[in-house]
Amino acid sequence: MSITTKSLDVIGIGNAIVDVLVQADDAFLAEHALSKGSMALIDEEQAERLYASVGPGLETSGGSAANTLAGIAQLGGRAAFIGRVRNDQLGGIFSHDIRAVGARFETPAAVEGPSTARCLILVTPDAQRTMCTYLGASVNLEPADLDLELVREAQVLYLEGYLWDSDAAKRAFIAAAEVMRDSGGQVALSLSDAFCVDRHRQSFLELVDGHVDVLFANETEIRSLYQTDDFEAAADQVRGRCRVAALTRSEKGSLVLSGADTLTIAPYHLGDLVDTTGAGDLYAAGFLYGYTRGQDLERCGRLGSLCAGQVVTQLGPRPQASLPELVANHLP
Amino acid sequence: MSITTKSLDVIGIGNAIVDVLVQADDAFLAEHALSKGSMALIDEEQAERLYASVGPGLETSGGSAANTLAGIAQLGGRAAFIGRVRNDQLGGIFSHDIRAVGARFETPAAVEGPSTARCLILVTPDAQRTMCTYLGASVNLEPADLDLELVREAQVLYLEGYLWDSDAAKRAFIAAAEVMRDSGGQVALSLSDAFCVDRHRQSFLELVDGHVDVLFANETEIRSLYQTDDFEAAADQVRGRCRVAALTRSEKGSLVLSGADTLTIAPYHLGDLVDTTGAGDLYAAGFLYGYTRGQDLERCGRLGSLCAGQVVTQLGPRPQASLPELVANHLP
Repeated sequence: MSITTKSLDVIGIGNAIVDVLVQADDAFLAEHALSKGSMALIDEEQAERLYASVGPGLETSGGSAANTLAGIAQLGGRAAFIGRVRNDQLGGIFSHDIRAVGARFETPAAVEGPSTARCLILVTPDAQRTMCTYLGASVNLEPADLDLELVREAQVLYLEGYLWDSDAAKRAFIAAAEVMRDSGGQVALSLSDAFCVDRHRQSFLELVDGHVDVLFANETEIRSLYQTDDFEAAADQVRGRCRVAALTRSEKGSLVLSGADTLTIAPYHLGDLVDTTGAGDLYAAGFLYGYTRGQDLERCGRLGSLCAGQVVTQLGPRPQASLPELVANHLP
Repeated sequence: MSITTKSLDVIGIGNAIVDVLVQADDAFLAEHALSKGSMALIDEEQAERLYASVGPGLETSGGSAANTLAGIAQLGGRAAFIGRVRNDQLGGIFSHDIRAVGARFETPAAVEGPSTARCLILVTPDAQRTMCTYLGASVNLEPADLDLELVREAQVLYLEGYLWDSDAAKRAFIAAAEVMRDSGGQVALSLSDAFCVDRHRQSFLELVDGHVDVLFANETEIRSLYQTDDFEAAADQVRGRCRVAALTRSEKGSLVLSGADTLTIAPYHLGDLVDTTGAGDLYAAGFLYGYTRGQDLERCGRLGSLCAGQVVTQLGPRPQASLPELVANHLP
């Protein structure tokens, strides 16, 4: 995209979540009827019960779009995030961490109601992550929380599909997307999770056709959207429906579709695979960082692939290594 | 020591703390007048101010004695911990994590007063950690909180020197030490930190001579206790004053002194040095695990060295790897 005079590169809307990373084995997933690699929504009581049954955890800020915006800020991009925490200790951690990397985060914390959202992330020995999310305060994000002036200031509005699980948040997003259009910016969407796509397929199909410029999806998500077992068929379906579709395929790298063009982007292997949490989020971060700098789609894809390649070598979805150094070393 | 019929191996008393691990450089330490490798006490306002100035963090349960007891439980030992959290989100995390590894933790959470203790741990690129602790609810531990029946049930009572920074906690400890003696058990003490030794030298000297069976200290701590720059001189001073003194020396391994005997224990190099947080705590865990099984001091020292060698290869003071597997592989 062309470089504009806007003051922000990307603004994201998503669930404001603190992750609790714990180790688990396949038997634990089976015992609790959890589907490996997916995200399940749980209520506070289920969250407490499940937490009581797992081992010691490591807590870190998370949230899909929040991870992406934190990544863009870490890369040096101008990023802002909109999402709702409660004014509790976990809300303080979330707010600190996203601001500490230089992203703007000004959504006021709720002073009553549910506590800050938590996601229990079960990391299995194969480095796959299985997530159980208590949405807490984050579902109370409403159109009134949106700083539409800030949205106007961004080149790209980025949303996570998970927002569709809350009617209020979904309304907030659609309002923001309309403002974005109006101000000459672009809209990007991550499909988030195959089960999330299942829950909201019709809505996502209309959204992709009507509002989305840049679509991020992994292989199972795009197959779920177009209800096919064949990745190539799903890719053919999405081609041309939005300006760019970036389809991630784990160890197979990614495909970037634009008009009739197909770019195949190789993955980066930067170390042992430790935890796939945040891989898709960081792919979107790298991609959008390049995209909002007017870089070609090949480089955008490589930046995404590089950031995703880093985050899977560590525990948790917020890169502990310096992303600018990583880019300087691998994509100067 | 001889194996008894007691139902617990080790009971520990210490500050119940959640750690916030952040990356920092030497310039940051200098700017905030922080002494590398040490622990400074800060109040809530200072904690907030310092937190606002650091990068994103990773939260994990900590606390020196708590780390040791968690380690003993992870090794398969029968462990209990006494310490005070507030009934807030961080208190919930601390309580969950120590119970999740199988340690008993029954001290009731405070329902009013200061929030759960936090320790901001600045990890520098050389893997050293520098700690700033807000003691919060943990200083309100009082003799009345002690379950003396539980203390009687343990072979060893373990305390961290940090407790001396709170008068109430210190009284609680001395009461527990007397009960321990009375019930035929032993008392172990970790000196915790050279500055902590400076603050309470006379008290520690009397304690070592009068109450302590097993002393854990690193090189700077034992030199501080006996006010000498010479490690050998300090080791000579402590010899014979308690049953066993285990003196840790980072990459030089450790010395175990008992009567006229001196055992030199080599360090274990199990990977890149990432973060020294918890090294001393896990040394004590391995050592006491062997000690309460009646194993010889050479093996106790090796167990300590092995557990310390593992924890420095990861971020944070609670081992993410399986300690029983580690022992099976290295010290079958």
